[in-house]
Amino acid sequence: MKQYEVFEIRLKGDAPKGSEAQVDVSATFACNGKTQQVKGFYDGAGNYVVRFLPEQCGKYTWQVSGALQESGVEWCDASPNRHGIVKAEGLHFKHADGTWFTPYGTTVYALIHQEESLIQTTMNTLRNAPFNKIRFCVFPKHYDFNHNEPKYYPFRKTNGVWDVHKPCYEYWHNLETRITQLDDMGIQGDLILFHPYDRWGFAEMGVENNLIYLDYLLRRLAAYPNLWWSMANEYDLFAGLTTEDWDVMTRFVAEQDPYGHLLSNHNCFPYWDFSQDWITHCCIQDTNVNEVPELQRKYGKPVVFDECRYEGNIVHSWGNLSAREMTHRFWTAMVYGGYCTHGETFYSEDEILWWAKGGVLKGKSPERIAFLRTIMDELPGPLEAVTEGVGALTVDMIEEMKVKGVPEQWKDDFFARNLIHLPTERILPFLLRHRPCLGHCGKDAYIRYFEKECTSVGIMDLPEDGVYRVDIIDTWEMTRKTVCSDASGQIRVDLPGKEGMALLALKTAEKASV
Amino acid sequence: MKQYEVFEIRLKGDAPKGSEAQVDVSATFACNGKTQQVKGFYDGAGNYVVRFLPEQCGKYTWQVSGALQESGVEWCDASPNRHGIVKAEGLHFKHADGTWFTPYGTTVYALIHQEESLIQTTMNTLRNAPFNKIRFCVFPKHYDFNHNEPKYYPFRKTNGVWDVHKPCYEYWHNLETRITQLDDMGIQGDLILFHPYDRWGFAEMGVENNLIYLDYLLRRLAAYPNLWWSMANEYDLFAGLTTEDWDVMTRFVAEQDPYGHLLSNHNCFPYWDFSQDWITHCCIQDTNVNEVPELQRKYGKPVVFDECRYEGNIVHSWGNLSAREMTHRFWTAMVYGGYCTHGETFYSEDEILWWAKGGVLKGKSPERIAFLRTIMDELPGPLEAVTEGVGALTVDMIEEMKVKGVPEQWKDDFFARNLIHLPTERILPFLLRHRPCLGHCGKDAYIRYFEKECTSVGIMDLPEDGVYRVDIIDTWEMTRKTVCSDASGQIRVDLPGKEGMALLALKTAEKASV
Repeated sequence: MKQYEVFEIRLKGDAPKGSEAQVDVSATFACNGKTQQVKGFYDGAGNYVVRFLPEQCGKYTWQVSGALQESGVEWCDASPNRHGIVKAEGLHFKHADGTWFTPYGTTVYALIHQEESLIQTTMNTLRNAPFNKIRFCVFPKHYDFNHNEPKYYPFRKTNGVWDVHKPCYEYWHNLETRITQLDDMGIQGDLILFHPYDRWGFAEMGVENNLIYLDYLLRRLAAYPNLWWSMANEYDLFAGLTTEDWDVMTRFVAEQDPYGHLLSNHNCFPYWDFSQDWITHCCIQDTNVNEVPELQRKYGKPVVFDECRYEGNIVHSWGNLSAREMTHRFWTAMVYGGYCTHGETFYSEDEILWWAKGGVLKGKSPERIAFLRTIMDELPGPLEAVTEGVGALTVDMIEEMKVKGVPEQWKDDFFARNLIHLPTERILPFLLRHRPCLGHCGKDAYIRYFEKECTSVGIMDLPEDGVYRVDIIDTWEMTRKTVCSDASGQIRVDLPGKEGMALLALKTAEKASV
Repeated sequence: MKQYEVFEIRLKGDAPKGSEAQVDVSATFACNGKTQQVKGFYDGAGNYVVRFLPEQCGKYTWQVSGALQESGVEWCDASPNRHGIVKAEGLHFKHADGTWFTPYGTTVYALIHQEESLIQTTMNTLRNAPFNKIRFCVFPKHYDFNHNEPKYYPFRKTNGVWDVHKPCYEYWHNLETRITQLDDMGIQGDLILFHPYDRWGFAEMGVENNLIYLDYLLRRLAAYPNLWWSMANEYDLFAGLTTEDWDVMTRFVAEQDPYGHLLSNHNCFPYWDFSQDWITHCCIQDTNVNEVPELQRKYGKPVVFDECRYEGNIVHSWGNLSAREMTHRFWTAMVYGGYCTHGETFYSEDEILWWAKGGVLKGKSPERIAFLRTIMDELPGPLEAVTEGVGALTVDMIEEMKVKGVPEQWKDDFFARNLIHLPTERILPFLLRHRPCLGHCGKDAYIRYFEKECTSVGIMDLPEDGVYRVDIIDTWEMTRKTVCSDASGQIRVDLPGKEGMALLALKTAEKASV
């Protein structure tokens, strides 16, 4: 037994008489006075399995009960290269061992439903790509450029109808192989539990069957340390499921998961209600990446733009972003302290588009995302958006001026003089639009991304009590140049007057007081 | 007297005893049974002037009355190169003689407040630029990069305070010289009557004085055929004027203008109420150029994005658009059947930025706007947005499907199948976002602009009963290539998969019925 690695107990027994999904096998694991109970599952051919994810080091005693009995003792050792499952920590993510996790997502919806050789090509691509999270589906996908029949389905059929009580074991073995392959590369699987792009009937099984499927999935997969639960891709497109149904299913996952994996639900139109206690983060399909701070404030949870459209050239408007635009969306979301997910839809005659089937990457954004990652990796911690006192007037400042009048230092500011007589709600959109895209790690690092502004001068307000090295970054050309090694206070840096520039200020020393 | 040209009667008299602005001189002009009355004005040095814009051909009899009397007869002849003032016609603009006018605006706020040599440079630039409308201010401007003192002010002072009863005649002569220079180049002056960027006090004269100023301005300028009235630049930033005050002033202009020049009011934040009867068109400051069809539907008037930010490189986010972005905004607004206005803010050490002072153009968008203009000039009439039945589902189609079920031809359409169970208002933003940017002139011409979509295939639905020549247009490279000469019905054209492409289909023949 190793900390943060799947521990498996395999037992032989008679095949279940009734449901193969809901077998009466469970186990308790006790360590350092803490006891956990997990369910086991039937894996076909008389095999019963209990999977457990040990998160502590020390002596575990375990006991299988129900239809089968067995017990044992294991010593759980530390596994220095493993960090445990990822959980939300404020507006960001941390592994169980306290290591920050910064997601750089990509999307291959039908990853596991392709032929072996294509899956291996995809895995090889991922090995050399900047991504450490991948969104993919349990169920096969039917949509444009996705019409192939998969080799396996999660269930067998009874009388021509999918039977959630009869798992297709080959399917699950294949899925688990992929999860393990991803884990070996340090990649989190953001597993999509339902989606509406379906011609087989998996999207229309009904809540009762869905819960049995979820129960079986959790018995099998909850012990994998590198999984997140994405309840759906586009929950709101299921004609047969109400919001209440989704509530029931989402709470079921939260309650049945012994480890508290990350859990969210992904929209087509209206966002899911991320304020629910059991939703761990905002999983968003939308293009408004510049609203990360508003979403963080509203929900108090990590904000992941898990679908902001795809780099590509297909006819659908959601699948023909330029590489510049995809790069821009990553920078915007991340400098504000949020996260973004990539996808790619370049048409090819073989209809192998990365976003659905995987294969090789053809776009120009992944190398830019890799470049962004090298910069973010240098920071001492996650970025927080700076939204107050950054050049734009804040709501509080305006409210105060309405009472006290324009303060002396703003007397020359046209907007300060003229805005105070307007209702505050009128000018909010203006403040939002004029807010710079600026993030910081305490006083250790500041990064300002100028978005599409072609300004010839970059201004940043750094603390007076620190000494900073300032780099100009060209997010498209992937260049980085130090322009100043002893910056303090407000700095003005010449910029080339083009889109996609950024300034990074890293603290190198305290400033001696004068 | 020439049709559509200023006709002037100059009389000598004693200087006014009281107000020099509100002199008791008016004139009637009668022609073909129609009588018009106009006010005259005092022009200093004992000169009284009546200006009149004859819009008919034939015999005019005129009679000056009030403090001075005079009468006369004039034959008004046609002036073949003149088209008369511009008025709104549906969602577009027409000259008095019925010629369509398609505005390509630019912005030089403090045009007339510069030194003579700079003004001449500006005029030379305009002569070779694609612009046929220019926004500029009556009052001098005080703002960043605009701190010079003008040579003239519209009024003299009494006891140190601007006195609207005492015009500064040199000021008005200078202004009229500029209006005439613009007219000689075929350029409409979109004259901004008030603006808040002021250090002299012109923005704070109060409604009573403002009306006297407007009265004098209309006496002098209403007969110029190439003027539009823009009540303000950013009416909502005047601390001392309420919406009711603006109503009073705007209605005053509408009522006192004998000719019905175009009249609108320009916002910083909330749009002016363009639904008012006397507002002739929507004069908008905003960036949402893709909402032209919604604005047209809401107001039923021409939509002009008179400020969509400026191409440039200054630090303000409203003044550092890329040339691509400015070009993009023009194409978007115009293909939807709306209009757009250019401005340029490249920093230079002499602080001569086009948007405020004029001079020379440095940006890369004007030549692209010129290219756009060559294409628009070929069309047989103004473009109307196509918003129904263009690939995206329409609201009506969805409402109908909710009642009747998905029709046979949509059975394979994922969104059609899945959208109908959602409340219509939920999916409106989606429909809006997925609507192609598409315009047409009846069945004679169709133009589809792909905006920032990098699609590798361009689809257009042309009528089956026409034969069309189809051109691929690269809006940035300014290239145009015919790819098909006998298109009918739905066409699919290979595109290079980059931003800013367009397809133009021009009808060359009727199609013989099969």
